[in-house]
Amino acid sequence: MTSITAHQLAQLLNGRIEGNPNATAHRIAKIEEATEGCLSFVANPKYEEYLYTTQASILIVNETLELQRPVQSTLIRVKDAYSAFAYLLELYAAQSNQKREGIEQPCFIHPDAVIEEGAYIGAFSYIGAHAHIGRGAQIYPLCYIGDRARIGASSLLYAGVVVYHDCEIGERVIIHSGTVIGSDGFGFAPQDDGQYKKIPQMGKVIVEDDVEIGANTTIDRATMGATIIHRGVKLDNLIQIAHNVEIGSHTAIAAQAGISGSTKIGKYCVIGGQAGLVGHIQIADHTRINAQSGVTKSIQYPGAAITGTPAFDYKSALKSQAIFRNLPNLEKRVRELEETVRQLLAEKERVS
Amino acid sequence: MTSITAHQLAQLLNGRIEGNPNATAHRIAKIEEATEGCLSFVANPKYEEYLYTTQASILIVNETLELQRPVQSTLIRVKDAYSAFAYLLELYAAQSNQKREGIEQPCFIHPDAVIEEGAYIGAFSYIGAHAHIGRGAQIYPLCYIGDRARIGASSLLYAGVVVYHDCEIGERVIIHSGTVIGSDGFGFAPQDDGQYKKIPQMGKVIVEDDVEIGANTTIDRATMGATIIHRGVKLDNLIQIAHNVEIGSHTAIAAQAGISGSTKIGKYCVIGGQAGLVGHIQIADHTRINAQSGVTKSIQYPGAAITGTPAFDYKSALKSQAIFRNLPNLEKRVRELEETVRQLLAEKERVS
Amino acid sequence: MTSITAHQLAQLLNGRIEGNPNATAHRIAKIEEATEGCLSFVANPKYEEYLYTTQASILIVNETLELQRPVQSTLIRVKDAYSAFAYLLELYAAQSNQKREGIEQPCFIHPDAVIEEGAYIGAFSYIGAHAHIGRGAQIYPLCYIGDRARIGASSLLYAGVVVYHDCEIGERVIIHSGTVIGSDGFGFAPQDDGQYKKIPQMGKVIVEDDVEIGANTTIDRATMGATIIHRGVKLDNLIQIAHNVEIGSHTAIAAQAGISGSTKIGKYCVIGGQAGLVGHIQIADHTRINAQSGVTKSIQYPGAAITGTPAFDYKSALKSQAIFRNLPNLEKRVRELEETVRQLLAEKERVS
Repeated sequence: MTSITAHQLAQLLNGRIEGNPNATAHRIAKIEEATEGCLSFVANPKYEEYLYTTQASILIVNETLELQRPVQSTLIRVKDAYSAFAYLLELYAAQSNQKREGIEQPCFIHPDAVIEEGAYIGAFSYIGAHAHIGRGAQIYPLCYIGDRARIGASSLLYAGVVVYHDCEIGERVIIHSGTVIGSDGFGFAPQDDGQYKKIPQMGKVIVEDDVEIGANTTIDRATMGATIIHRGVKLDNLIQIAHNVEIGSHTAIAAQAGISGSTKIGKYCVIGGQAGLVGHIQIADHTRINAQSGVTKSIQYPGAAITGTPAFDYKSALKSQAIFRNLPNLEKRVRELEETVRQLLAEKERVS
Repeated sequence: MTSITAHQLAQLLNGRIEGNPNATAHRIAKIEEATEGCLSFVANPKYEEYLYTTQASILIVNETLELQRPVQSTLIRVKDAYSAFAYLLELYAAQSNQKREGIEQPCFIHPDAVIEEGAYIGAFSYIGAHAHIGRGAQIYPLCYIGDRARIGASSLLYAGVVVYHDCEIGERVIIHSGTVIGSDGFGFAPQDDGQYKKIPQMGKVIVEDDVEIGANTTIDRATMGATIIHRGVKLDNLIQIAHNVEIGSHTAIAAQAGISGSTKIGKYCVIGGQAGLVGHIQIADHTRINAQSGVTKSIQYPGAAITGTPAFDYKSALKSQAIFRNLPNLEKRVRELEETVRQLLAEKERVS
Repeated sequence: MTSITAHQLAQLLNGRIEGNPNATAHRIAKIEEATEGCLSFVANPKYEEYLYTTQASILIVNETLELQRPVQSTLIRVKDAYSAFAYLLELYAAQSNQKREGIEQPCFIHPDAVIEEGAYIGAFSYIGAHAHIGRGAQIYPLCYIGDRARIGASSLLYAGVVVYHDCEIGERVIIHSGTVIGSDGFGFAPQDDGQYKKIPQMGKVIVEDDVEIGANTTIDRATMGATIIHRGVKLDNLIQIAHNVEIGSHTAIAAQAGISGSTKIGKYCVIGGQAGLVGHIQIADHTRINAQSGVTKSIQYPGAAITGTPAFDYKSALKSQAIFRNLPNLEKRVRELEETVRQLLAEKERVS
């Protein structure tokens, strides 16, 4: 990173300087690791304690931050410190990341595949018959793009991504290594003898524009029709998306969550890590599902927050959990009541 | 799909027509997405509501279906609508899927490997020394087959499957992308200083005939002997099978479940998604383990259904869960009882 | 395995013979599968029942083992049967595993990459610009080593491992197939319109010496700085390690566990399978976290054992769980108390 002054940063971020406008940073670091010459930020209150001890030269903080005592660093106050810092990282990333281009050898490109201008095909990648790789798409080494699959313009597939035949990936999509798009859904018809008969999975997967998918996630193709990941969805690592699932726009799902077959998730939902949803349910927009929850029923009204297995209303669940921790005490209270009542009854007996 | 009439379908499926025998379909679709010219089906009662609004030309339904009011589509009544539809999909799949054959270049085949007739080895696949690829097996691109590993006749490994050395895959097995067979079991001997010493994993994995394994699943090799997946087992995506586990024939396991070391699972079991089983236990045949359960003990008698963490009898657990949701209410009732009893005692005191 | 006598084994393991010093074994097997001519061991009391029925020729057992009745096998008594047996397996493994060496073609090695002496680069592996492969490191086929990444001496990457750019792997590290090191952390800034803006992940991953990582595990690169896996850590399969996490030396984590962003785990901890930890917490050294736990708070004092979701003290949790199983009974007792008290009140009313 080239040097930047507090003055320059304040202009770039439309912020207000508190301290020395000539303070200079030439490195980006987390607040807890920042040393002199570093630019850092504080957005999460958990990290405010570091404000008073850090050697960072410049700190980006929220407009609304209230200092408990003086700080050594020069502050740049902005409306949203987290977003402002993200914007800086982005500028920095754009500067340092090199877009790859061209065909690296050896790779396998079927004669009937179409590779648009400006695309990168890494060594040992395999592009099947009638596959279509959009303008400026980057297919890193060791990827597999099946027959008739489509990768949209400017999308980026890191090393070792697999896209099965007929699946469609939108534009500006990012997919991390080891992720599998379009494997067969888990569909088997139980037979009278207890064995299973495979249901052919004839559908596909559609991943719309601006989606990002983490590493080693799996998204199964539909039995018929399509499993659909709508525009702007963010999926973390090791997530399971079963056949015929639909994830609404701008929903975010954390690592190791699993969505069972044919479940439809609304827009702007947030699903925590290791949560699991049963199949054939519908989740309203703006639902928040806590980590490790087990969701067994549809959520009809937008904006609910749920937790637990089986999951129910978040606030009620917290109350039940609090009592659960003290269950032995509750049981003891019941035992004591029983003893007292027994004595009352015995005395009454004696009296009468 | 070529066109088909209700009459032809009824003959093919041994079904009974209700409506127009000349109704014609040329596309397959899910009931909720079916339009005119579509063939669809209803087996799950959840989807019966669509019967009365769908534009589908032909619907396959169960013999026993009771209509609430007239429907527009021509019905084909069969004994088991789900299986009948699966059978149609299968015919359709057989028609449209092309079996791959031959050696695609560049690939790596060790001179001491054996590739039987009719096999397909995709580009960038690696076949180790003394590995054996059976007749008509399809090894898609970017697979790794270790030394002395065996892939049975007509088995299908999608792109990017890894089979470690010495592992044995049976016939007609399907393995989806990113799955790893034969990685070392998680075996470490704790030392006096708290560090771990690796226990070499000398065994292998045996996957018997007609097994299907989803994407990004991991099956560890045994410390000694073999981790065994018996005939007809169906494993979903992202499942963990630890060393020395044995899974009985025709058991089905849903995504993200994990089976710890040396546990033996019976035949015809069904294990839900994200369930976890501790090591060194035994699960009787026909056991049903609910999603997200944590199984800590052996199940001795066949046919049990369990849920929860730690898991116990399904029906009892549902009752406990129902009360858990109302724990704050139970606690309130106990508090009120305590108050009432306190007053009773106080009055008694006063009286005496 | 070449034949070995009880006498030779006793010398090798510094053990005491009980039985025939000339007993000979030529195969290693688990106690429950051992036949004549086999060498086996018993360390876990669960397996002691096999002592009296096995046909194994030689058994390694703990010094302290108390026999209930005579056994047929010759015993070698040692201080720690498990470690002694592990040592034998190691000798055996060293004998049978061949270290790979040399450059297998075709592979892709960037002209600016450095490959040290004695390294193995498997076919279809990709070594990026300025990557560094240490002395005697083994990179199996189909691996991807990004630009400027470093693999330490004598490390072993099985087929299909991905190491993103700039990540650093120490010496004698073992990484199993399908594992992804250095994918982007799940960092997105929510915007006012509910959409997400990607936070560039500028950091890296550092994996220190003597770490072992299972198959299909994912370790995300830091936003800034590094995600760090310290010396001697053992990670199982399908684990998620989020950005900026730090795992202390000699901690072991079982399959499918997930650690959220910026959480710091101490040394010598043990984390069970499918456990999940929220982000931004700290776990003290020697903490034991039970399988499937959901850890929502920091653990401040070393040596705690916790379980449940949300997780709390192990022993207390067991008591709560026991009552949970009988909640319907507790509710019934409260109902009966209510009835009795109601009658007492009614009688009192009548009396007064």
